[in-house]
Amino acid sequence: MTIRNFDNLLKPASVALVGASIKAGSVGSIVARNLLQDGFKGPVWFVNPKYQAIADHPCYPSVAALPHAPDLAVLVTPPPTIPALIEELGEKGTRAALVITAGIRGELKQAMLSAARPYTLRVQGPNCVGLMLPRIGLNASFSFAPLAGDIALLSQSGALITGIVDWARGRNIGFSHVVSLGDMADADFGDLLDYLASDPQCRAILLYMESVTNAPKFMSAARRAARSKPVIVVKAGRSSSGAKAAQSHTGALAGTDAAYEAAFRRAGVLRVRELDELFSAAEILARQPRINGDRLAILTNGGGAGVLATDRLGDLNGNLTELTKATLGALDAVLPPTWSHSNPVDIIGDADAERYLNALEILLGANEADAVLVMNCPTALMSSTPIAQAIIGLVEQRRKQGRSLKPMLATWLGDAASREAREEFAAHQIASFG
Amino acid sequence: MTIRNFDNLLKPASVALVGASIKAGSVGSIVARNLLQDGFKGPVWFVNPKYQAIADHPCYPSVAALPHAPDLAVLVTPPPTIPALIEELGEKGTRAALVITAGIRGELKQAMLSAARPYTLRVQGPNCVGLMLPRIGLNASFSFAPLAGDIALLSQSGALITGIVDWARGRNIGFSHVVSLGDMADADFGDLLDYLASDPQCRAILLYMESVTNAPKFMSAARRAARSKPVIVVKAGRSSSGAKAAQSHTGALAGTDAAYEAAFRRAGVLRVRELDELFSAAEILARQPRINGDRLAILTNGGGAGVLATDRLGDLNGNLTELTKATLGALDAVLPPTWSHSNPVDIIGDADAERYLNALEILLGANEADAVLVMNCPTALMSSTPIAQAIIGLVEQRRKQGRSLKPMLATWLGDAASREAREEFAAHQIASFG
Repeated sequence: MTIRNFDNLLKPASVALVGASIKAGSVGSIVARNLLQDGFKGPVWFVNPKYQAIADHPCYPSVAALPHAPDLAVLVTPPPTIPALIEELGEKGTRAALVITAGIRGELKQAMLSAARPYTLRVQGPNCVGLMLPRIGLNASFSFAPLAGDIALLSQSGALITGIVDWARGRNIGFSHVVSLGDMADADFGDLLDYLASDPQCRAILLYMESVTNAPKFMSAARRAARSKPVIVVKAGRSSSGAKAAQSHTGALAGTDAAYEAAFRRAGVLRVRELDELFSAAEILARQPRINGDRLAILTNGGGAGVLATDRLGDLNGNLTELTKATLGALDAVLPPTWSHSNPVDIIGDADAERYLNALEILLGANEADAVLVMNCPTALMSSTPIAQAIIGLVEQRRKQGRSLKPMLATWLGDAASREAREEFAAHQIASFG
Repeated sequence: MTIRNFDNLLKPASVALVGASIKAGSVGSIVARNLLQDGFKGPVWFVNPKYQAIADHPCYPSVAALPHAPDLAVLVTPPPTIPALIEELGEKGTRAALVITAGIRGELKQAMLSAARPYTLRVQGPNCVGLMLPRIGLNASFSFAPLAGDIALLSQSGALITGIVDWARGRNIGFSHVVSLGDMADADFGDLLDYLASDPQCRAILLYMESVTNAPKFMSAARRAARSKPVIVVKAGRSSSGAKAAQSHTGALAGTDAAYEAAFRRAGVLRVRELDELFSAAEILARQPRINGDRLAILTNGGGAGVLATDRLGDLNGNLTELTKATLGALDAVLPPTWSHSNPVDIIGDADAERYLNALEILLGANEADAVLVMNCPTALMSSTPIAQAIIGLVEQRRKQGRSLKPMLATWLGDAASREAREEFAAHQIASFG
């Protein structure tokens, strides 16, 4: 396995867009705009014989005319032009290309790879949305730019990337790398996992996968990556009709699901079933220290909400912690006699911010709880927002004091009544769900 | 089984609130405010010896002093006062009481029921959030009022009611009846299901249940209700720790989950696992004609999204329809050659509103599809909102023409990029998810 030249792809100092355009709505114009908008510090060169400048930015007639070899070349030109452009780029000294262009199959694909090989030039794509490296301000894609953060996202579906990036922005979650893998003619899951395993800028890796092309490479890279950081996958094509749909989508055979299941388990990769679970995992990973145990304490003002959370915890093989006598006693001392006297800690519908805080202080200090889930059902008695604000205050205070805070998740039910609370949680890096 | 006097509870022409208060934040003051705010046409009387008027509304010193017997009495007075008040109300002619007060157990509960029995006075509660009948503008609760609609919600958890009502309001979903069952001293799931089975104002019934107290009554009523309208239940306490949590919450033994599972199936009640599935069911029931088959067509601009939807459909034992040659040919005629040529119908990332409309028209007319799921992944090429607007236009046009429209669901991925689209779907009664 080689991750040779991946630094050119994932840490480029200069970028050229071949096929840059001014035609409104074209991929060449959107990628050009995105390259200029996100704050990338290195030079961005445009290549297109039709123009002398694009957006007041010089445009060169050919790759040969570029002042230097770009670290990364982004190609959006028609399929038949790609192999010769790769050849020209390799000749000039470029070692990484991002081929956004679709429709490069069969002989054309072989020609592209043959052109790249003598230069060990690495290719991402073809047929992808692009590459986003928000930490260096690079948006080489026709998607919206994500926020900068420390989660990597590798996706075999380009359309999902835009949805995930947009969803994450709304929750103030940022990414280190967003890679649209496309047809994986060269760079694939294995290569990228291998590279990201040792990249300190990336704290967790999310995958959307339809198929693995090189299984041994994937297994070895996944195992290595999962040893150093959480690797979470949505593997689509679980059902036979889903697998058929995946095949029609990317042309790759999805293989039997049981084999994937076993492979993920062996590699230490966490598989989730749906995109919203990938989102939840991203939300938690973005906000929280790693959880060091499975014993959860639940704090709620609604008994029913606590029961539902307990059920779900059971589904996921989590563990509702047994509160010690000391903890129960401490809670008795600060809660009204009607509280549930067990976990979930139901502090009853009229709970105000102070009651939440008193109970939460105790649960965050209880050794028998590895994490705390705080839930709020809106009531007409108590607004949800001040309770959220009080909890944020407590967390911020502990952060400032440098006290190690165990993972705390929030679930604020409702819509309008809890929207403000959810926004405040996001602004203060507390994982919340609704 | 008797549903005697339930009309007094669920179609009252007059209401008295015993324990009405002006003390800010008290249950007595919030219920008083709610009773006056929602547009209830009949008289609302307040009872409390401390005041002569509340919010410019006359307040009577006692039940005996009321000008007439209220159809429905709402009680928020301290536990020890309840049995005597029930007696006094029954004596005066009232036949339904909503007891919001908590802490009525053991002997006190027996005394309350004994006081009610000679008058066949029906009791909802005690220990509940209240009762909401938005179609007649009655909010006899300390929750926010829901919108008026035709879904009934019966919940054994009061706190969840407020969350659900708030969530539903954000999606423009309305309710016919929202009943907080509380401790179910008298009125229980069986009674209410039996009543609602034949109430034409209610088109579907959602239940949040922790336990059934009278199993034969429940079975018979549920069977009857499920024959005439969808009955959907979240039964909490599935896991053993969840069951324990439920017991600590309502004091009722949740029973073995397998027995509930079998009972629901026999009664024709649809069980869902989580609140968000109850929400989804509500969303679909609120917007759509009943689905008459399980064959789904999926229309998407993102292949990956189509694969994920197909997987989920497989999980739920749904059926991805096989498109006929005629349908495939019709789609070929309006779509670019790169479309997926099978179901899911992937019309590719650059799909605009016109391409969506052309494909949707064909799928809505295809006999082999019982329902259509339309998905959109946001892209930087095409805004999501105009696509949603075009689809809404098509649906509205068909509605105006009186053409029977098969169920159409929408899934718009992302957050900011799709928020506007989701709001427009909700405003036009199209079920959408994100």
